[in-house]
Amino acid sequence: MEIEVLRIGQRLVRDDRVTTHVALVARAFGATKIYMNEVNPEIKDTLEKINNTWGGDFDIEFIDNWKNVIKKRKSESAKIVHLTMYGENINDVDSKIQNEDEVLIVVGAEKVPREVYELADYNVAIGNQPHSEISALGVLLDRMQKGNQFHATYQNAQRKIIPTKQGKNVIVNETRD
Amino acid sequence: MEIEVLRIGQRLVRDDRVTTHVALVARAFGATKIYMNEVNPEIKDTLEKINNTWGGDFDIEFIDNWKNVIKKRKSESAKIVHLTMYGENINDVDSKIQNEDEVLIVVGAEKVPREVYELADYNVAIGNQPHSEISALGVLLDRMQKGNQFHATYQNAQRKIIPTKQGKNVIVNETRD
Repeated sequence: MEIEVLRIGQRLVRDDRVTTHVALVARAFGATKIYMNEVNPEIKDTLEKINNTWGGDFDIEFIDNWKNVIKKRKSESAKIVHLTMYGENINDVDSKIQNEDEVLIVVGAEKVPREVYELADYNVAIGNQPHSEISALGVLLDRMQKGNQFHATYQNAQRKIIPTKQGKNVIVNETRD
Repeated sequence: MEIEVLRIGQRLVRDDRVTTHVALVARAFGATKIYMNEVNPEIKDTLEKINNTWGGDFDIEFIDNWKNVIKKRKSESAKIVHLTMYGENINDVDSKIQNEDEVLIVVGAEKVPREVYELADYNVAIGNQPHSEISALGVLLDRMQKGNQFHATYQNAQRKIIPTKQGKNVIVNETRD
Protein backbone atom coordinates (compact mmCIF):
# COMPACT_ATOMS: atom_id res chain seq x y z
CA MET A 1 0.00 0.00 0.00
CA GLU A 2 1.28 3.48 -0.84
CA ILE A 3 0.43 6.02 1.84
CA GLU A 4 0.77 9.80 1.87
CA VAL A 5 -0.41 12.35 4.45
CA LEU A 6 -1.82 15.84 3.92
CA ARG A 7 -1.72 18.19 6.90
CA ILE A 8 -4.15 21.12 6.68
CA GLY A 9 -5.33 24.01 8.81
CA GLN A 10 -2.45 24.30 11.24
CA ARG A 11 -1.95 27.69 12.86
CA LEU A 12 1.52 29.15 12.67
CA VAL A 13 3.67 28.73 15.79
CA ARG A 14 0.84 27.44 17.98
CA ASP A 15 0.65 24.19 16.03
CA ASP A 16 4.31 23.81 15.06
CA ARG A 17 5.13 21.09 17.56
CA VAL A 18 1.93 19.20 16.85
CA THR A 19 2.60 19.38 13.11
CA THR A 20 6.16 18.16 13.69
CA HIS A 21 4.79 15.19 15.64
CA VAL A 22 2.28 14.49 12.85
CA ALA A 23 5.13 14.42 10.33
CA LEU A 24 7.27 12.18 12.54
CA VAL A 25 4.41 9.72 12.97
CA ALA A 26 3.80 9.69 9.21
CA ARG A 27 7.48 8.85 8.66
CA ALA A 28 7.78 6.28 11.46
CA PHE A 29 4.52 4.50 10.57
CA GLY A 30 5.11 3.80 6.90
CA ALA A 31 3.90 6.84 4.96
CA THR A 32 6.23 7.98 2.16
CA LYS A 33 5.42 11.68 2.16
CA ILE A 34 3.65 14.54 3.91
CA TYR A 35 2.20 17.63 2.22
CA MET A 36 1.83 20.74 4.37
CA ASN A 37 1.20 24.44 3.90
CA GLU A 38 1.90 27.59 5.89
CA VAL A 39 4.36 25.88 8.15
CA ASN A 40 7.55 26.87 9.79
CA PRO A 41 10.41 25.78 7.48
CA GLU A 42 12.21 24.44 10.56
CA ILE A 43 9.87 21.48 10.49
CA LYS A 44 11.43 20.43 7.19
CA ASP A 45 14.91 20.77 8.69
CA THR A 46 13.90 18.65 11.66
CA LEU A 47 12.60 15.88 9.43
CA GLU A 48 15.69 16.01 7.22
CA LYS A 49 17.89 15.57 10.26
CA ILE A 50 15.78 12.60 11.33
CA ASN A 51 16.11 11.07 7.86
CA ASN A 52 19.89 11.53 8.00
CA THR A 53 20.21 9.92 11.39
CA TRP A 54 17.56 7.23 11.26
CA GLY A 55 17.42 6.51 7.53
CA GLY A 56 14.85 6.34 4.78
CA ASP A 57 13.75 8.99 2.32
CA PHE A 58 10.53 10.31 3.81
CA ASP A 59 9.53 13.37 1.84
CA ILE A 60 8.00 16.73 2.85
CA GLU A 61 6.39 18.90 0.21
CA PHE A 62 5.26 22.44 0.98
CA ILE A 63 2.08 23.28 -0.89
CA ASP A 64 -0.05 26.35 -1.53
CA ASN A 65 -3.40 24.75 -2.11
CA TRP A 66 -4.54 21.64 -0.27
CA LYS A 67 -7.64 21.26 -2.43
CA ASN A 68 -5.52 20.79 -5.53
CA VAL A 69 -3.53 18.05 -3.80
CA ILE A 70 -6.68 16.15 -2.88
CA LYS A 71 -8.17 16.52 -6.35
CA LYS A 72 -4.95 15.52 -8.10
CA ARG A 73 -4.45 12.42 -5.95
CA LYS A 74 -8.12 11.48 -6.37
CA SER A 75 -7.78 11.72 -10.15
CA GLU A 76 -4.75 9.41 -9.86
CA SER A 77 -7.05 6.92 -8.10
CA ALA A 78 -5.80 7.38 -4.53
CA LYS A 79 -8.50 7.04 -1.91
CA ILE A 80 -8.92 9.97 0.46
CA VAL A 81 -9.14 9.07 4.16
CA HIS A 82 -10.10 12.03 6.32
CA LEU A 83 -9.52 11.73 10.07
CA THR A 84 -12.40 13.31 11.98
CA MET A 85 -13.98 12.55 15.34
CA TYR A 86 -17.36 12.77 13.57
CA GLY A 87 -16.65 9.98 11.09
CA GLU A 88 -17.28 6.26 11.01
CA ASN A 89 -15.73 4.20 13.77
CA ILE A 90 -12.32 2.84 12.70
CA ASN A 91 -13.39 -0.57 14.03
CA ASP A 92 -16.04 -0.68 11.30
CA VAL A 93 -13.94 0.46 8.34
CA ASP A 94 -10.34 -0.63 8.92
CA SER A 95 -10.72 -3.88 6.99
CA LYS A 96 -12.00 -1.96 3.94
CA ILE A 97 -9.18 0.59 4.03
CA GLN A 98 -6.61 -2.22 4.37
CA ASN A 99 -7.55 -3.32 0.86
CA GLU A 100 -6.86 0.00 -0.84
CA ASP A 101 -3.72 0.39 -2.96
CA GLU A 102 -3.09 4.12 -2.62
CA VAL A 103 -4.28 6.30 0.22
CA LEU A 104 -3.99 10.00 0.99
CA ILE A 105 -4.74 10.66 4.67
CA VAL A 106 -6.02 14.15 5.50
CA VAL A 107 -5.12 15.36 9.01
CA GLY A 108 -6.81 18.61 10.01
CA ALA A 109 -5.96 20.90 12.91
CA GLU A 110 -8.91 22.90 14.27
CA LYS A 111 -11.97 23.46 12.10
CA VAL A 112 -11.88 21.63 8.78
CA PRO A 113 -13.79 22.98 5.76
CA ARG A 114 -16.94 21.04 4.90
CA GLU A 115 -15.52 20.33 1.45
CA VAL A 116 -12.96 17.93 2.95
CA TYR A 117 -15.77 15.73 4.27
CA GLU A 118 -17.30 15.70 0.80
CA LEU A 119 -14.08 15.00 -1.09
CA ALA A 120 -13.16 12.15 1.27
CA ASP A 121 -13.80 8.53 0.34
CA TYR A 122 -13.68 7.68 4.04
CA ASN A 123 -14.38 9.98 6.98
CA VAL A 124 -12.89 7.98 9.84
CA ALA A 125 -13.09 8.49 13.59
CA ILE A 126 -10.45 6.98 15.86
CA GLY A 127 -13.16 6.86 18.47
CA ASN A 128 -15.67 9.68 18.83
CA GLN A 129 -14.05 11.38 21.81
CA PRO A 130 -11.75 14.39 21.46
CA HIS A 131 -8.06 13.53 21.62
CA SER A 132 -5.21 14.34 19.26
CA GLU A 133 -4.59 14.25 15.53
CA ILE A 134 -1.21 12.69 16.36
CA SER A 135 -2.70 9.63 18.05
CA ALA A 136 -5.44 9.45 15.43
CA LEU A 137 -2.88 9.25 12.64
CA GLY A 138 -0.81 6.71 14.58
CA VAL A 139 -3.70 4.34 15.19
CA LEU A 140 -5.03 4.67 11.64
CA LEU A 141 -1.63 3.82 10.14
CA ASP A 142 -1.20 0.93 12.58
CA ARG A 143 -4.60 -0.52 11.70
CA MET A 144 -4.10 -0.02 7.95
CA GLN A 145 -0.84 -1.93 7.96
CA LYS A 146 -1.64 -4.37 10.78
CA GLY A 147 1.55 -3.46 12.61
CA ASN A 148 3.82 -4.47 9.72
CA GLN A 149 5.20 -0.92 9.55
CA PHE A 150 7.15 -1.68 12.71
CA HIS A 151 9.24 -4.29 10.89
CA ALA A 152 10.25 -1.93 8.06
CA THR A 153 13.90 -1.19 7.36
CA TYR A 154 15.07 2.41 6.93
CA GLN A 155 17.87 2.59 4.36
CA ASN A 156 21.16 4.40 4.99
CA ALA A 157 20.60 4.95 8.69
CA GLN A 158 23.47 6.20 10.83
CA ARG A 159 21.76 4.80 13.90
CA LYS A 160 19.61 1.74 14.34
CA ILE A 161 17.97 0.49 17.51
CA ILE A 162 17.99 -3.18 18.38
CA PRO A 163 14.87 -3.81 20.48
CA THR A 164 15.74 -4.90 23.97
CA LYS A 165 13.98 -5.75 27.22
CA GLN A 166 15.92 -3.27 29.30
CA GLY A 167 18.24 -0.39 28.55
CA LYS A 168 19.38 0.84 25.15
CA ASN A 169 21.03 -1.02 22.31
CA VAL A 170 21.94 1.21 19.39
CA ILE A 171 24.09 0.36 16.37
CA VAL A 172 25.96 3.42 15.14
CA ASN A 173 27.10 3.09 11.53
CA GLU A 174 29.21 6.21 11.18
CA THR A 175 31.93 7.82 13.16
CA ARG A 176 30.75 11.13 14.45
CA ASP A 177 32.75 14.18 15.48
CA MET B 1 -8.29 -4.27 32.54
CA GLU B 2 -7.63 -1.23 34.71
CA ILE B 3 -5.29 1.23 33.08
CA GLU B 4 -3.58 4.33 34.47
CA VAL B 5 -0.97 6.61 32.90
CA LEU B 6 1.99 8.36 34.50
CA ARG B 7 3.48 11.31 32.63
CA ILE B 8 7.03 12.19 33.62
CA GLY B 9 9.78 14.56 32.59
CA GLN B 10 7.77 17.21 30.77
CA ARG B 11 9.31 20.65 30.56
CA LEU B 12 7.12 23.55 31.66
CA VAL B 13 5.46 25.51 28.84
CA ARG B 14 7.42 23.82 26.05
CA ASP B 15 5.64 20.51 26.64
CA ASP B 16 2.26 21.79 27.80
CA ARG B 17 0.41 21.04 24.58
CA VAL B 18 2.03 17.65 24.20
CA THR B 19 1.15 16.77 27.79
CA THR B 20 -2.43 17.91 27.20
CA HIS B 21 -2.62 15.63 24.16
CA VAL B 22 -1.19 12.75 26.20
CA ALA B 23 -3.89 13.28 28.83
CA LEU B 24 -6.64 13.49 26.19
CA VAL B 25 -5.48 10.26 24.59
CA ALA B 26 -5.39 8.53 27.97
CA ARG B 27 -8.99 9.63 28.59
CA ALA B 28 -10.29 8.83 25.09
CA PHE B 29 -8.57 5.43 24.91
CA GLY B 30 -9.86 3.86 28.10
CA ALA B 31 -7.45 4.84 30.88
CA THR B 32 -9.12 5.91 34.13
CA LYS B 33 -6.49 8.32 35.40
CA ILE B 34 -3.31 10.23 34.65
CA TYR B 35 -0.64 11.22 37.17
CA MET B 36 1.54 14.19 36.29
CA ASN B 37 3.97 16.52 38.01
CA GLU B 38 5.26 20.04 37.40
CA VAL B 39 2.54 20.86 34.95
CA ASN B 40 0.54 23.91 34.15
CA PRO B 41 -2.71 23.73 36.19
CA GLU B 42 -4.58 24.78 33.05
CA ILE B 43 -4.17 21.24 31.78
CA LYS B 44 -6.41 20.06 34.61
CA ASP B 45 -9.01 22.70 33.73
CA THR B 46 -8.94 21.62 30.09
CA LEU B 47 -9.54 18.00 31.00
CA GLU B 48 -12.31 18.91 33.44
CA LYS B 49 -14.08 20.84 30.69
CA ILE B 50 -13.74 17.85 28.39
CA ASN B 51 -15.21 15.57 31.07
CA ASN B 52 -18.14 17.97 31.53
CA THR B 53 -18.88 18.15 27.83
CA TRP B 54 -18.07 14.63 26.68
CA GLY B 55 -18.75 12.64 29.85
CA GLY B 56 -16.97 10.16 32.04
CA ASP B 57 -14.91 10.72 35.17
CA PHE B 58 -11.35 10.57 33.93
CA ASP B 59 -9.10 11.67 36.76
CA ILE B 60 -5.95 13.82 36.90
CA GLU B 61 -3.73 13.66 39.95
CA PHE B 62 -0.83 16.07 40.41
CA ILE B 63 2.09 14.36 42.10
CA ASP B 64 5.43 15.35 43.58
CA ASN B 65 7.36 12.14 43.18
CA TRP B 66 6.88 9.84 40.22
CA LYS B 67 9.07 7.12 41.73
CA ASN B 68 6.70 6.74 44.65
CA VAL B 69 3.76 6.32 42.26
CA ILE B 70 5.52 3.54 40.37
CA LYS B 71 6.60 1.77 43.56
CA LYS B 72 3.16 2.05 45.16
CA ARG B 73 1.34 0.72 42.07
CA LYS B 74 3.89 -2.09 41.72
CA SER B 75 3.31 -3.11 45.35
CA GLU B 76 -0.42 -3.20 44.57
CA SER B 77 0.40 -5.66 41.76
CA ALA B 78 -0.02 -3.33 38.78
CA LYS B 79 2.37 -4.05 35.93
CA ILE B 80 4.52 -1.14 34.78
CA VAL B 81 4.66 -0.60 31.01
CA HIS B 82 7.25 1.96 29.99
CA LEU B 83 7.01 3.40 26.49
CA THR B 84 10.47 3.82 24.98
CA MET B 85 11.78 3.63 21.43
CA TYR B 86 14.55 1.37 22.78
CA GLY B 87 12.20 -1.30 24.11
CA GLU B 88 10.78 -4.52 22.75
CA ASN B 89 8.68 -4.28 19.61
CA ILE B 90 5.00 -3.92 20.48
CA ASN B 91 4.25 -6.61 17.89
CA ASP B 92 6.12 -9.10 20.08
CA VAL B 93 4.62 -8.20 23.47
CA ASP B 94 1.07 -6.94 22.93
CA SER B 95 -0.52 -10.34 23.47
CA LYS B 96 1.23 -10.66 26.84
CA ILE B 97 0.20 -7.18 28.02
CA GLN B 98 -3.40 -7.86 26.96
CA ASN B 99 -3.57 -10.50 29.68
CA GLU B 100 -2.60 -8.20 32.55
CA ASP B 101 -5.27 -7.02 35.00
CA GLU B 102 -3.80 -3.71 36.11
CA VAL B 103 -1.35 -1.61 34.17
CA LEU B 104 0.44 1.66 34.83
CA ILE B 105 1.82 3.11 31.61
CA VAL B 106 4.83 5.43 31.96
CA VAL B 107 5.09 8.12 29.27
CA GLY B 108 8.32 10.10 29.34
CA ALA B 109 9.13 13.37 27.61
CA GLU B 110 12.83 13.84 26.79
CA LYS B 111 15.47 11.87 28.64
CA VAL B 112 14.07 9.30 31.05
CA PRO B 113 16.07 8.20 34.12
CA ARG B 114 17.59 4.73 33.85
CA GLU B 115 15.65 3.69 36.93
CA VAL B 116 12.41 3.74 34.96
CA TYR B 117 13.78 1.06 32.62
CA GLU B 118 14.66 -1.04 35.65
CA LEU B 119 11.37 -0.59 37.48
CA ALA B 120 9.34 -1.42 34.36
CA ASP B 121 7.89 -4.88 33.83
CA TYR B 122 7.75 -4.11 30.12
CA ASN B 123 9.87 -1.63 28.17
CA VAL B 124 7.86 -1.33 24.96
CA ALA B 125 8.70 0.34 21.66
CA ILE B 126 5.94 1.40 19.30
CA GLY B 127 8.44 0.85 16.54
CA ASN B 128 12.08 1.81 16.97
CA GLN B 129 11.94 5.06 15.02
CA PRO B 130 11.53 8.46 16.70
CA HIS B 131 7.97 9.79 16.63
CA SER B 132 5.74 11.04 19.42
CA GLU B 133 4.77 9.93 22.91
CA ILE B 134 1.19 10.83 21.93
CA SER B 135 1.02 8.32 19.08
CA ALA B 136 2.96 5.77 21.13
CA LEU B 137 0.39 5.93 23.93
CA GLY B 138 -2.49 5.79 21.43
CA VAL B 139 -1.22 2.67 19.68
CA LEU B 140 -0.32 0.92 22.94
CA LEU B 141 -3.80 1.50 24.38
CA ASP B 142 -5.42 0.41 21.12
CA ARG B 143 -3.39 -2.81 21.02
CA MET B 144 -3.96 -3.55 24.72
CA GLN B 145 -7.73 -3.29 24.37
CA LYS B 146 -8.02 -4.55 20.78
CA GLY B 147 -10.05 -1.51 19.76
CA ASN B 148 -12.81 -2.16 22.32
CA GLN B 149 -12.12 1.23 23.94
CA PHE B 150 -13.82 2.85 20.93
CA HIS B 151 -17.15 1.28 21.88
CA ALA B 152 -17.09 2.56 25.48
CA THR B 153 -19.86 4.82 26.79
CA TYR B 154 -18.99 8.03 28.65
CA GLN B 155 -21.54 8.70 31.40
CA ASN B 156 -23.30 12.06 31.84
CA ALA B 157 -22.12 13.53 28.56
CA GLN B 158 -23.64 16.79 27.34
CA ARG B 159 -22.60 15.95 23.81
CA LYS B 160 -22.36 12.63 22.05
CA ILE B 161 -21.27 11.97 18.48
CA ILE B 162 -23.14 9.48 16.34
CA PRO B 163 -20.60 8.12 13.84
CA THR B 164 -21.53 9.04 10.29
CA LYS B 165 -20.13 8.64 6.79
CA GLN B 166 -20.23 12.34 5.98
CA GLY B 167 -20.75 15.50 8.00
CA LYS B 168 -21.46 15.78 11.71
CA ASN B 169 -24.13 14.17 13.83
CA VAL B 170 -24.04 15.29 17.45
CA ILE B 171 -26.63 14.67 20.16
CA VAL B 172 -26.73 17.58 22.63
CA ASN B 173 -28.26 16.64 25.98
CA GLU B 174 -28.36 20.03 27.65
CA THR B 175 -29.48 23.46 26.70
CA ARG B 176 -26.54 25.79 26.61
CA ASP B 177 -26.43 29.58 27.04
